[in-house]
Amino acid sequence: MAEYSIGVDLGGTNLRAAAITREGKILEKVSVPTNPLLGRESLLREMVAGISDLRSRWGTSTLAGIGLGIPGFILLKQGVIRNSNNLACIEDFPFRDEMEKRLQTKVVLENDANAAALGEKWMGAGRDVDDLILFTLGTGIGGGIISGGKVLHGFVGMAGELGHLTVMPNGFPCGCGNNGCVEKHASATAIGAMARLMGLGENLSSADVYNLANNGNEHARRIFQSMGQSLGIALAMVVNIFNFPLYLLSGGVLAAWEFFAPAMLDEARRRSFTFRNSNTRVEKAILGNEAGLYGAGFLPWAEPELENVAGH
Amino acid sequence: MAEYSIGVDLGGTNLRAAAITREGKILEKVSVPTNPLLGRESLLREMVAGISDLRSRWGTSTLAGIGLGIPGFILLKQGVIRNSNNLACIEDFPFRDEMEKRLQTKVVLENDANAAALGEKWMGAGRDVDDLILFTLGTGIGGGIISGGKVLHGFVGMAGELGHLTVMPNGFPCGCGNNGCVEKHASATAIGAMARLMGLGENLSSADVYNLANNGNEHARRIFQSMGQSLGIALAMVVNIFNFPLYLLSGGVLAAWEFFAPAMLDEARRRSFTFRNSNTRVEKAILGNEAGLYGAGFLPWAEPELENVAGH
Repeated sequence: MAEYSIGVDLGGTNLRAAAITREGKILEKVSVPTNPLLGRESLLREMVAGISDLRSRWGTSTLAGIGLGIPGFILLKQGVIRNSNNLACIEDFPFRDEMEKRLQTKVVLENDANAAALGEKWMGAGRDVDDLILFTLGTGIGGGIISGGKVLHGFVGMAGELGHLTVMPNGFPCGCGNNGCVEKHASATAIGAMARLMGLGENLSSADVYNLANNGNEHARRIFQSMGQSLGIALAMVVNIFNFPLYLLSGGVLAAWEFFAPAMLDEARRRSFTFRNSNTRVEKAILGNEAGLYGAGFLPWAEPELENVAGH
Repeated sequence: MAEYSIGVDLGGTNLRAAAITREGKILEKVSVPTNPLLGRESLLREMVAGISDLRSRWGTSTLAGIGLGIPGFILLKQGVIRNSNNLACIEDFPFRDEMEKRLQTKVVLENDANAAALGEKWMGAGRDVDDLILFTLGTGIGGGIISGGKVLHGFVGMAGELGHLTVMPNGFPCGCGNNGCVEKHASATAIGAMARLMGLGENLSSADVYNLANNGNEHARRIFQSMGQSLGIALAMVVNIFNFPLYLLSGGVLAAWEFFAPAMLDEARRRSFTFRNSNTRVEKAILGNEAGLYGAGFLPWAEPELENVAGH
């Protein structure tokens, strides 16, 4: 059998895992419910059981390793999750080493948005470039930066926190301590919050607001315009900083592209000389939820950079 | 004789050049007045004469090449200055190729702030790290990003425009098309503009405002606090994006460090989870005006990356 890896996307309520070949073919996908509220030991057992089960069907000898995409701040060298809202029970714990011990194979951790960016680079919308940035638009906004074909990690592994770009210095407060983070003004959650502020309803999802916009509701359309402007301010900044050829967006809210993208692109164009003067592409990511699985699966084959990551 | 290079800092009114050894020893420095208003051919002759004169004293056979630091947007692969306020007469012209032809040696162009960042990495405050960011505070604010020991260029060479980070979406208008660029709120020019707005005087330099602050003037002190806050907003964003170990500031306005740095660091700390949770250093650059000369001098020895820079 040919070599394969296992890519894992760790969520708050389930674990998705895929066996993937070196050529990027998904052999099998599984989803296993997990419950972090039952505590660390229980969660670790659920994870190990889910992964082991998948591995039992594809073999141990040809497994290159296991990559784990995790929502949160990760200390890469130590293999420790420093902060994760949904997985607090495994914070500040030698998670990678413990998983390696239990699974008896190489385990590589990565932030989930970084993994998604790597997935899009490997098998998705970024296959033709070495440098790209991905914004993941969901409950929050995540970011992944691929520079020279590799994830930009920073010195403890916290780079790429693009959701915390400031688009309004006195904007909505954010759990990170900042005000006006782009994720408080342009995430799916922010769309729901704006809908409430506009009196459209108490508990609307971004999909509900999209449906309203689609039906001609002007308030809903203005919400997407505002969201697009906030994204455009952030986009202009990353274009000015990186001058990369490709910027990708992902998330369910992309369904509303027609309502937010014009405002986003206008704003980016006006605010960035570089955007206007280079052939900068802003596109939809194409792998959807699979991006994180692909990226996590690629981790065991990614060039090890940990030697360059200084200690905390 | 040992190998050496010539590093050149192209200003609007003069050209500074240095002969530098591979070990970073400056053999000789010269400064030659130039006048871009006399037109392209005259300017090219002045530049070539100044550089040739220096070279005549240190030899042709041991010259590794000539690096030119230029204020403006540069299309690296083409060797073309796309936009430079002070050197408009050589914009959109095959500048590098023409200089190579006239000087008969390798010529490498670089943005001046990128060159300064490279200089600080090579022989200055960044010698001990591979990843750093430099903010140059002057008439405007420039930026240079060193990632993995190399200048981050982006795909046409325009990366690192940190002066155009938005710190206030409806702030002062900027020539780049944006509003609220950090260089409009925290450069030496911005300090003078704020002094005027505060009624301190019509034509005060940032040094004048510093002297007022030093003498206890509260208006002057508030100007530096405001400037520090704006810098802090920008700093928090680059920390969130890069998670690099070192951020350097340079420029004459650093004399006022005691008046702006506390506000800058408070703002960065509050606005960046990563800043608070990693040992992020924010320091003064140490090479002053020489940084650009060192960096330009290093260019002929820098790993060629042009193969990776796609066409415009």
